[in-house]
Amino acid sequence: MRVDSDRLWRSLAELGEVGAYDDEATGLRGVCRLALTDADAAGRRLVRRWFEEVGLAVRVDRIGNTYGRRAGSDADAGVVMSGSHIDSVPTGGRFDGALGVLGALEVVRTLADAGTVTRRPIEIAFFTDEEGARFGTDMLGSATACGRLSVEQAWALRDRDGSTVRGELERIGFLGEAPERLTPPHAYVELHIEQGPILEAAGMDAGIVTGVQAISWFELTIVGRAAHAGTTPMELRRDAGLAAARINVRMHEMAASGRYGSGMRVTMGRIDASPNRVNIVPRNVVCTVDLRNPDDDAMAAAESDLERYYRELERDMPGIRIEARQTARTASVRFAPAVQSVIEARMQAHGVRYQRILSGAGHDAQELAAICPAGMIFVPGKHDGISHNPREFSTQEACALGTQLLLETLLDLSR
Amino acid sequence: MRVDSDRLWRSLAELGEVGAYDDEATGLRGVCRLALTDADAAGRRLVRRWFEEVGLAVRVDRIGNTYGRRAGSDADAGVVMSGSHIDSVPTGGRFDGALGVLGALEVVRTLADAGTVTRRPIEIAFFTDEEGARFGTDMLGSATACGRLSVEQAWALRDRDGSTVRGELERIGFLGEAPERLTPPHAYVELHIEQGPILEAAGMDAGIVTGVQAISWFELTIVGRAAHAGTTPMELRRDAGLAAARINVRMHEMAASGRYGSGMRVTMGRIDASPNRVNIVPRNVVCTVDLRNPDDDAMAAAESDLERYYRELERDMPGIRIEARQTARTASVRFAPAVQSVIEARMQAHGVRYQRILSGAGHDAQELAAICPAGMIFVPGKHDGISHNPREFSTQEACALGTQLLLETLLDLSR
Repeated sequence: MRVDSDRLWRSLAELGEVGAYDDEATGLRGVCRLALTDADAAGRRLVRRWFEEVGLAVRVDRIGNTYGRRAGSDADAGVVMSGSHIDSVPTGGRFDGALGVLGALEVVRTLADAGTVTRRPIEIAFFTDEEGARFGTDMLGSATACGRLSVEQAWALRDRDGSTVRGELERIGFLGEAPERLTPPHAYVELHIEQGPILEAAGMDAGIVTGVQAISWFELTIVGRAAHAGTTPMELRRDAGLAAARINVRMHEMAASGRYGSGMRVTMGRIDASPNRVNIVPRNVVCTVDLRNPDDDAMAAAESDLERYYRELERDMPGIRIEARQTARTASVRFAPAVQSVIEARMQAHGVRYQRILSGAGHDAQELAAICPAGMIFVPGKHDGISHNPREFSTQEACALGTQLLLETLLDLSR
Repeated sequence: MRVDSDRLWRSLAELGEVGAYDDEATGLRGVCRLALTDADAAGRRLVRRWFEEVGLAVRVDRIGNTYGRRAGSDADAGVVMSGSHIDSVPTGGRFDGALGVLGALEVVRTLADAGTVTRRPIEIAFFTDEEGARFGTDMLGSATACGRLSVEQAWALRDRDGSTVRGELERIGFLGEAPERLTPPHAYVELHIEQGPILEAAGMDAGIVTGVQAISWFELTIVGRAAHAGTTPMELRRDAGLAAARINVRMHEMAASGRYGSGMRVTMGRIDASPNRVNIVPRNVVCTVDLRNPDDDAMAAAESDLERYYRELERDMPGIRIEARQTARTASVRFAPAVQSVIEARMQAHGVRYQRILSGAGHDAQELAAICPAGMIFVPGKHDGISHNPREFSTQEACALGTQLLLETLLDLSR
């Protein structure tokens, strides 16, 4: 049984036109389907129609997650599930999320064409607001389905204009009646574009995702003292910009040291200095620290070592105060070895070049992992894996291969 | 002969109300007398009237510099000159510039009260646009008077709205007819607030300024590559923010090393990263480097060592490009030892606590130093010497002492 590569590619293109815009920075066609906007609603209606056209029984739950169920021969067996999301960041591409949803759809279309009946039911899904780009909390729908968030918490979230999740669900017609809490599936497998450079750089056709790394974000407020760059002796300065620079350099030394494992990643992505003038010593800097680590203990060690470094820096630079406020924190997630093994067996059968890979980004699968054996298949991205950008791209062949592997994995799991 | 401390203080307060505004950041009364605006014109008319009331022969030159001459007994002797500026930055205080002009005025008032006739003529002056805050070139009037700029160059400068210096001089009635090129005075001495923390921190009553340090400004454009903070391995990053941090840390190591003398000052005052998001590796940073050094050779060495470091960093961080564009450069200026000695003798006679001090900021006196023996007297500032800010402050006692020293120095020089 073979998935239809062209049909998959056409569906990706068709959904990619919903919420599309001409991106000035890249000269390319981008996607803006922020969760629960009109564009997202149009995408939802299109995909729901596709679910219905292939004969799935569709249900929408109270947080807008939309499931399509294909019956199995054993009515009592737990479902095998696959899905992802169709919302995007404001400057998104065609693959992030969409590939997982339309890949699962292509699996079901292929099963329907072949008239195959699996023992277990197969459910495919798109979850609400995976990106968190509008309401501030990512994996919103899957976290609600899997119990990390209550539906009341999720409904109450507001966007910048004050619109609530519940109000927007109602407005776009996706405030469903199905219970939001998911009966644990037998297994969950999600197909996704890597969103990073590793698979392409290593010449791999696909990746078996071993888990999602821990994430820790801090916003640092560094308070020093503004001073005239010409008249103030070095020893009388309290340079908040220098303190930020030292922290950035130290974080990178920590990552390079190997003391926190080889998977530690550090980024100071944002830095705002004030008054931000050539001849004034910075009084104040607000900057961010983004730490990632596959190992929770190593992450905790890095966090506390950095905190200790802030205090050391305050002693070393009298008059500097550094305040670190945690703005995000998730523990690492390990995907089920049994699911990884099923995926691996299919890859080996096809002779594809593959490697195990840890996900740097968050995914709905990490929420599902809390209630059932879960796993993910990555397809490589082009252009060094750029994502959240109209340049995001994976080839038709890579997408079709990933979908074929998904089909066979779901078939194996549904026996 | 004693200057009148109260009269000086009242004049400072009266001029300080011209162009005054209520500063929200400090809750204090600030001064905004940008060069050649209506506020500056009002200040000019007030001070010119004071010049006339004390019997000075006033002339305005073609760049708006305004001189008041008090005849001496020897008509052929070169003049002894003192002055400064009355224009301010947009958020200025009452002392920067104004103290030098009104201190010189108080000297002449004191001479007039005493009926003293000096051998040499005494001229006091306020020079046009010392700050450069409106037309972009500082020491504009004194540089034109002393030959570094032609009057045509100066006239042609435009502010953001396109108004020219010449047009604005004409509009406010200060496009004079006196030749702008100054006959070299016998000597020039300028009183000024320190604008830095050194004298106050050392418990000094006043300072003898030895010169003005060299200034070198660069704008750095660092180009790297944006990347996902979660998915991009450390070794594949081109982090423009990290490169900027390393440069900032290196500059400070250079200053601390002593290899460029003890007077090297370094500041990265401005840093703008893009896209400036917590979870995106910075693609691009624009930042500034401000170097100061009293020693021109040490400055040149620091400049070339930094340039070499940029190339080293490009090799060390493949994919990073660093472009440094010089945006300002002035050589150091040494004030005449003979003038310093005269000032020092007066300080010793009064038993004041004083020290020699290098000026970190630029002043009209450095232009005058190109055509005659020049010197400066600093009075300490409060609040760590903050300046270009409504908190700028010097006590009545310190201002009066500085003015008394100026009086006696000018008397000595005019013998």
